[in-house]
Amino acid sequence: MTETSNHSASRPVVTAFEWVPEFARGLVRDLRVRWALEEIGRPYDSELLNARAPRPKAYLARQPFDQVPAFRDGDLDIFETGAILLYLGEQDERLLPAGGQPRWTAISWLFSALNSVEPVAQRIVSYDVFHKDKPWAPDAREASLGLCKQKLKRVDAALAGKDWLAGPFSIADIAMVTVLNILRHTELVADYPALAAYKARGEARPAYKRALDAQYADFKEEQAA
Amino acid sequence: MTETSNHSASRPVVTAFEWVPEFARGLVRDLRVRWALEEIGRPYDSELLNARAPRPKAYLARQPFDQVPAFRDGDLDIFETGAILLYLGEQDERLLPAGGQPRWTAISWLFSALNSVEPVAQRIVSYDVFHKDKPWAPDAREASLGLCKQKLKRVDAALAGKDWLAGPFSIADIAMVTVLNILRHTELVADYPALAAYKARGEARPAYKRALDAQYADFKEEQAA
Repeated sequence: MTETSNHSASRPVVTAFEWVPEFARGLVRDLRVRWALEEIGRPYDSELLNARAPRPKAYLARQPFDQVPAFRDGDLDIFETGAILLYLGEQDERLLPAGGQPRWTAISWLFSALNSVEPVAQRIVSYDVFHKDKPWAPDAREASLGLCKQKLKRVDAALAGKDWLAGPFSIADIAMVTVLNILRHTELVADYPALAAYKARGEARPAYKRALDAQYADFKEEQAA
Repeated sequence: MTETSNHSASRPVVTAFEWVPEFARGLVRDLRVRWALEEIGRPYDSELLNARAPRPKAYLARQPFDQVPAFRDGDLDIFETGAILLYLGEQDERLLPAGGQPRWTAISWLFSALNSVEPVAQRIVSYDVFHKDKPWAPDAREASLGLCKQKLKRVDAALAGKDWLAGPFSIADIAMVTVLNILRHTELVADYPALAAYKARGEARPAYKRALDAQYADFKEEQAA
């Protein structure tokens, strides 16, 4: 376990939403950062934002797309969950091997989760949730289903004989398991046994459960919001 | 400029396609890797694959989604353009600042290009190119246009007063400029002057032109394929 010199003493800050609708709970991306921090037992603070109002203007300097999470560790600001996971991974080998092929295999899979799998999964969610009442949505969904299944099949195949994508558990698994969970309203993952078992294995980790509990604990009750 | 010990002497290998249809030329992702290599003047070899036939089975071990590019440097295998760009960036400060906030700002923008912008741009391409004759495509396109414009607007705003996303030119710009080019069949980028100027600035770099020439030079003539 390696740690950067001046950040380990401070508590990093993760931005999150104080309330989101039921269908989004457990999916907001601060979960990925919380999970990584829980894996290495690093205490952190959450900074809660209102999802239903524009964020304060100054927030754009920390997160140019006005989304959560943004991450601050000491005087360092990072945005995009992939970048934050990589940063945390570089500080602790329990999240990312320190060098050589193991490091680059994990980083390759980290990008796969975010650039090869999440976009096709997100498209299914878009049709099923955000455009579910549109007359064109079923046709559009059907047309994108093949690509989504193709990606899931490839990840499923890559998991043959492995517990985790890159050998040991890593930030790649935090990204991939949370990306797969975007499809929780479907049976798509369940159709691939190795993939479904992998997702269940990830979600059974105590650090995942603690992260999920922490995200839910930060949500205010709707009547109070 | 820092270089890893045992890779600088060998020529890295980038996989690419020996032929793609006209609409895909200049968009195949090996261009990103070629561009980074050209920026640092590192000679490389391309290994050409047939886009219209299944790749050899062994290729899946190097690229689990059966796509290009895969990258090999000495005994190291990397896939996903984001990971390959990061690897090359870590070897040369002309591609990625070595540490601190400048490094993490560039890495944050690298992930932004691939996880926040490319998915929404790719969706537009999907409707305009792959599903252009479907009766539902115009409605689906219209419904996803707002999100695409929102992302472009945010990148445009972040570029105010800057030549490059993270200060000095970096791998983030290689990713973002090539992602923006996915929309070259539309006027979407042109609607944002800072963004359009930024894209033109990237594409005016000699290393970009050399990379593009190299990708085109590898395409066989259709009649010969």
